[in-house]
Amino acid sequence: MAGDEIDNSLQHVRHKPPTILDQPRELILACPQFNSNVNVSRIVRLLGCCGVTRMIISGRNKIDPDIARDAIQAVQLETRSSLPPVLKRLAAEGYRIVGLEQTNRSHDLMQYKFERRTVLVLGSERQGITPDVLACLHESVEIPVWGMPYSYNVATAATMAVYEYCRQYPKG
Amino acid sequence: MAGDEIDNSLQHVRHKPPTILDQPRELILACPQFNSNVNVSRIVRLLGCCGVTRMIISGRNKIDPDIARDAIQAVQLETRSSLPPVLKRLAAEGYRIVGLEQTNRSHDLMQYKFERRTVLVLGSERQGITPDVLACLHESVEIPVWGMPYSYNVATAATMAVYEYCRQYPKG
Repeated sequence: MAGDEIDNSLQHVRHKPPTILDQPRELILACPQFNSNVNVSRIVRLLGCCGVTRMIISGRNKIDPDIARDAIQAVQLETRSSLPPVLKRLAAEGYRIVGLEQTNRSHDLMQYKFERRTVLVLGSERQGITPDVLACLHESVEIPVWGMPYSYNVATAATMAVYEYCRQYPKG
Repeated sequence: MAGDEIDNSLQHVRHKPPTILDQPRELILACPQFNSNVNVSRIVRLLGCCGVTRMIISGRNKIDPDIARDAIQAVQLETRSSLPPVLKRLAAEGYRIVGLEQTNRSHDLMQYKFERRTVLVLGSERQGITPDVLACLHESVEIPVWGMPYSYNVATAATMAVYEYCRQYPKG
C-alpha cells in the first residue's frame, strides 16, 4: 500500500495485456436455462475475462454479443437437454461438483477451498438449483447476505464465486 | 469439505436469514454518471445485499426498481454535481480513497488489504475514472484479466471489489 498522501501521478492505462495462466483453467460452469438472456450473456463475458473456457448449459438461451463481446469466441458453450448425465460423467472424471445455492448444508463461499477441477453449478433466477441437479452435487456453497433484498442476482453471485476460484488459482 | 461422495441429502433452503454485522459497514461507493441505468441499478442491489448503505453518484442515473429491488430502500443515494469535492472531504475524515481502475500503478485486488474506512471509486463504462477523479485517489486497484474481451463490465468489476472488501470484513 502506498503512503497516506493522495497520489497525484496516477494515470489511466487502457488495454493492459492479460495475465498469462500457467495452465488452462480446470473450472467448468454448468447452468440451467435462465429466465434472462442478459444474465447468461453477462456470465459468458465474465468467463471469457477470467480465462474459463467451458460452459455447459441445458437450455435455449441466446447469447447477446453486445453483452458477451469477444467472450463468445473464447468460451465453448455445450448445450445439453439436461444437466444430471453430464454432471455424473464429470464427477467420474474427477471433477468436484459444487452448487452455488442456499441449502441445508452449504459452505460459506468465503471460507471454502475449491478443488482445481471443479464444476460450478448455478441455478436459475426463480427456481434455484432443481432437486434433480442438487442430487448430483458433492456439496454446495453459498454467499453471505447482509441486507435487502437478501438475494443476489444470479450473474452477480456467479461473479463472486468465479472471482473466489480465480483468487485461489491465480495462475490456473 | 464433505467427503468424496455425492451428497444426496441437499435441500434448497429459501429465504435464509441474513448475516448480522457487528458494526455498520464503513465502505462507501462513489460513482460517476454511468451510461447504463441497468449497471447502476445492479450495483445498488449488490450494495443492499452486502449491507453497504451509502452510495455517492455524480449523475442523473435512474435506479430501476425491478433490478435494484428492496435495495432502493436500504441504500442511501447521495447525488452530487461532481465527485472531487466530496472525495476530498471524505479523505479529510479519514477515508481511504481507492479507485477501481487500470492505472500505471494499480494494486492487484486479490492481493490488496482494504482499510475499513474506504471509499471505492468506480469509473464509467466508456471513460473509466476521469483525470479529475484520479487526482483524488490514494491509490488504485485492478482486477487481473485472463482472457477476452479483456475488460470486465463495470457492475461485474464492482461486484468483485465489494466481495473482496466483505471477505476481509465479514462482520462489518
